[in-house]
Amino acid sequence: MDAGHAAGHVDPFAGVLLALAAVTAAALAGRWLAQRAGLASVVGELSIGVAIGNTGYQLGDPLATLVMHGANVTELLREAWLSSEGIAVTLREHIAAAYIGGDAAAARALGALQGPDGPALLAILAALWVFSNLGVILLLLMVGLESSIEGLLRVGARASAVAVAGVIAPFALGYLASTWLLAYAGTATHLFVGATFTATSVGITARVLRDLGRMESREAQMILGAAVIDDVLGLVILAVVVGIAESGRLELASVARIGLLSAAFLAAVLFAGERVGGWLARLLSALERRHVKLLAPLVAAFAMAWLANAIGLAAIVGAFAAGLMLRDEQFDANASHSASLHETLAPLESIFAPVFFVLMGMQVNLELLLEPQTLALGAAFVAVAIVGKLVAGVFAGAGANKWTIGLGMVPRGEVGLIFASIGKQLGVVDAAVFSAVVTMVMVTTLVAPLGLSWSLRRAG
Amino acid sequence: MDAGHAAGHVDPFAGVLLALAAVTAAALAGRWLAQRAGLASVVGELSIGVAIGNTGYQLGDPLATLVMHGANVTELLREAWLSSEGIAVTLREHIAAAYIGGDAAAARALGALQGPDGPALLAILAALWVFSNLGVILLLLMVGLESSIEGLLRVGARASAVAVAGVIAPFALGYLASTWLLAYAGTATHLFVGATFTATSVGITARVLRDLGRMESREAQMILGAAVIDDVLGLVILAVVVGIAESGRLELASVARIGLLSAAFLAAVLFAGERVGGWLARLLSALERRHVKLLAPLVAAFAMAWLANAIGLAAIVGAFAAGLMLRDEQFDANASHSASLHETLAPLESIFAPVFFVLMGMQVNLELLLEPQTLALGAAFVAVAIVGKLVAGVFAGAGANKWTIGLGMVPRGEVGLIFASIGKQLGVVDAAVFSAVVTMVMVTTLVAPLGLSWSLRRAG
Repeated sequence: MDAGHAAGHVDPFAGVLLALAAVTAAALAGRWLAQRAGLASVVGELSIGVAIGNTGYQLGDPLATLVMHGANVTELLREAWLSSEGIAVTLREHIAAAYIGGDAAAARALGALQGPDGPALLAILAALWVFSNLGVILLLLMVGLESSIEGLLRVGARASAVAVAGVIAPFALGYLASTWLLAYAGTATHLFVGATFTATSVGITARVLRDLGRMESREAQMILGAAVIDDVLGLVILAVVVGIAESGRLELASVARIGLLSAAFLAAVLFAGERVGGWLARLLSALERRHVKLLAPLVAAFAMAWLANAIGLAAIVGAFAAGLMLRDEQFDANASHSASLHETLAPLESIFAPVFFVLMGMQVNLELLLEPQTLALGAAFVAVAIVGKLVAGVFAGAGANKWTIGLGMVPRGEVGLIFASIGKQLGVVDAAVFSAVVTMVMVTTLVAPLGLSWSLRRAG
Repeated sequence: MDAGHAAGHVDPFAGVLLALAAVTAAALAGRWLAQRAGLASVVGELSIGVAIGNTGYQLGDPLATLVMHGANVTELLREAWLSSEGIAVTLREHIAAAYIGGDAAAARALGALQGPDGPALLAILAALWVFSNLGVILLLLMVGLESSIEGLLRVGARASAVAVAGVIAPFALGYLASTWLLAYAGTATHLFVGATFTATSVGITARVLRDLGRMESREAQMILGAAVIDDVLGLVILAVVVGIAESGRLELASVARIGLLSAAFLAAVLFAGERVGGWLARLLSALERRHVKLLAPLVAAFAMAWLANAIGLAAIVGAFAAGLMLRDEQFDANASHSASLHETLAPLESIFAPVFFVLMGMQVNLELLLEPQTLALGAAFVAVAIVGKLVAGVFAGAGANKWTIGLGMVPRGEVGLIFASIGKQLGVVDAAVFSAVVTMVMVTTLVAPLGLSWSLRRAG
């Protein structure tokens, strides 16, 4: 630490704070622009992320490049960590490697990571990762608070139909598209491509519905219910295709295990959730009256997200469940702190959630998006992704806007990326398919809010 | 990622959430116990941190051990990162190394860091680090909001006298104690030991004053003013002794640079701060009316903390300055959001600040504290640290409680540790002296809140 020389002590957290201030300021600017244009705020945050990310990337800014290659960087660090060679050697190999090699900006960023500023850059990346993850957890917690268990049960049957259709249709279409476009590949690849289209990433849709004040609508409840069921079905499918890709056969035991655990988790939340929530509210009120309406939801969300993840569901499903479990009536009305749970948590969410959306935008690589081959395969994937979920909307039944429900389930977000990266690690998804999947995720993420805004305005 | 097998995708953030939930729950329990015992809440948070940290450490929990050796872990990771050997090799060397070697718990923790769970453990450590740093930034921002520039200027002359005495007395006493107790060492060591006693770590004191509702008092304003001046003086002294230790002579240029930059920063805040704050409030209000009272202070605190650090001051001084710059009157009174800046930020601080204090407690190694040699040297250092700052209290003048001011400046916190670790890197502070400094920091951190509670209650 030669910082001691002249400048007192240099705190690595100072760089983190500057990055956070910059991302927050960017989110503010994006939100303001979106409001001017009459669009959902999240569109502004995503777009400003795309603008900043790609400008920084083209200018060779190390941080922008590392965020752009976020998934690869995580993988690379894990590899370097566990390797018996030094970080420098591992990084040098990756600079030369195919999927980010030949990319001058990426090579420069990895060079920076390798140098003396490497740990400082890593600290900033880690902090942005923490904030972004916390943001999406808070978002789903808020969405859960705005939903009710009765509401979900009321739309339950229809939401199940939508979810099942929304898994089968994209899977089948994806499988067919893969056999046709990727004739060279084997069945395992086709299965993986199909699976990539199944899971709905509900974060974006939830934001649009909230931005436009439609969280209470029948459509919103149906989309949320279907997305949770989707997540469960998607994970069961993933377990099946991973089993087939790895061992060449279907592993019934693990499929049954995930299916049962997930069903038990959801049943427990639906039927005992509010009781557990009330118990938690009373316990924490006894410990700390002043900030209990902030602490109880956070402790519940953190614990439930961990629990959901431990049994194989997405962490955000747990955060959503925590929101379902808590109601204002569970807290002592005489407490000095009279703001509602929702009012108490809103400021916190308004700080963290934008970090997630700006970072999502910063990972959209416009250069990659515009490459002819990726563009063709990506376009096919986008079509499959959109049509597949629009088909699901048809099963929404009378009294609900089929377009809104179909469009609301279009975004694949990070879940699709996770599926594709598992396929890549297993060697059944190659670089071209992976890029096309990334393109599909980008486009569905950007298109869904626009389509949804249109559909909601059209329906009045 | 063999997580794909059975459990869908395992999100590394799930472990982070569990750790955060655990730390928050611990802070709640500690606060509750302290309130029962009539002590400041921060004493409860620190104590529960000590209890959890040492229990986990003795049981060989990898996370507790890594937190306990926090400073070493950061240094070790930086070294491993920049080394041409693998992480495993570097870690293995450190397992054998002197200052944490021979320590079974540390060896086990490093073994865990080396294994497949290493990256997950690192992610949790990084997240706790982010939360803890954010907590102390938020705390000083709140303290700044509760202070006023006029108040500081009113106590200015007296605070300067207290600060100067509070730097000279501990430095002189520390230097003398070092020449007497460490006869084997050279002048550079004595200078470093003396410097270690100078800087006041105001976080703890600010918490105690707030816990007991004394933030508005003349004593509180004087302690805050003196602590800021202390920080500047301490950094100038650090620059001097580092220069002497490195080159054997006094580097006037760097001393002058730090002195001037710091003075310019403080003068700018005192004389133009409120105008800049008003301008920021208007700009951000135009962009986002709804959450502006949350966003403006955070953006200001993050940016000022970065700026302070960039010119060589502690980041928390910048956060304090940001709080001084903003007042409720700068925001449109007609805004829908009528809560004060203070009310808006309080929940956020109540979540993050306890993480800092619980982690501080978790770094207090009781085993080390009870070793006879460290105990003797540490006891001498504690005496010097306390007496040195009590002397400063004498200069508080009439109308202020001298005990409260002296005791309020006793905690050395992380600033003393940073000074000592720079000395260690320069080779002028050996392991025994470093342990004694750590002991001094621990004891002053734990004792000051108790003494301060006593003194405030005594004064009524």
